[in-house]
Amino acid sequence: MPVKKKPPRRSSCPINASLEILGDRWSLLIIRDLMLRSYQTYKELLSSDEGIATNILAERLKRLDAAGIISTSRDAGDRRKVVYRLTAKGIDLAPIVVELILWGAQHEPAGVPPAAIRRMRAGRKQFLSEIRRNWEEGGTAVFIANPRKA
Amino acid sequence: MPVKKKPPRRSSCPINASLEILGDRWSLLIIRDLMLRSYQTYKELLSSDEGIATNILAERLKRLDAAGIISTSRDAGDRRKVVYRLTAKGIDLAPIVVELILWGAQHEPAGVPPAAIRRMRAGRKQFLSEIRRNWEEGGTAVFIANPRKA
Repeated sequence: MPVKKKPPRRSSCPINASLEILGDRWSLLIIRDLMLRSYQTYKELLSSDEGIATNILAERLKRLDAAGIISTSRDAGDRRKVVYRLTAKGIDLAPIVVELILWGAQHEPAGVPPAAIRRMRAGRKQFLSEIRRNWEEGGTAVFIANPRKA
Repeated sequence: MPVKKKPPRRSSCPINASLEILGDRWSLLIIRDLMLRSYQTYKELLSSDEGIATNILAERLKRLDAAGIISTSRDAGDRRKVVYRLTAKGIDLAPIVVELILWGAQHEPAGVPPAAIRRMRAGRKQFLSEIRRNWEEGGTAVFIANPRKA
């Protein structure tokens, strides 16, 4: 599916700008997987617990690439394999992702123990540093597991 | 439009829980207007710069009410007037909203001067306190203006 030329923004509000890119039910889940599960391939992204459809995943990856949030490259070892990675602009989404975790964990039934939420809230700054360091190192850290794989 | 019975969650991930409620292009704009413009009425919410359609606004308000993010009541002075207000769960979205502002302002053309972004980032904690205090006081503060009204 070709990515269409962007229509003009609905407003000049920065929240609106963010939502025009990220405001759907899937994009931030893909970003979660790249950021907190160190997923790199289409197959890995497709494996996530929410069961994203393959056409939606493909379309969202194109949009995230067009928005400069992810980069797409070929695996150094296996040139047939496409590798997705967050850009600097993409890793800057970490505070949004962390706040979405904290709010969802606190207010919705999500199976996160209250002590774990308190720890994450208290250690918010350190958690953000670790996420960034893992990204800088081209890392493999798994900050939150995919229950399907557990 | 009646709010349908909720289907089961796609996963137990807290980010997914947040996105199932907030993951669209409009809900967080309505929350922005209640939180940062102290809007309280349907007419005010309809006036925002992004030009939300009246049927979408009505449907989103119902969903946000059903999710416990806003409460709906009658104006004390004019019983015909419906007043929307963030609940405690709703005002807890402030850190997400602030991070969406910061990311959008930094990475997208949104007409926010870099000095203003730096100030907001440095004063993030105080900004969050002010948002909460305004809410606790049933406030009228305008943290970000609606350009249509300016």
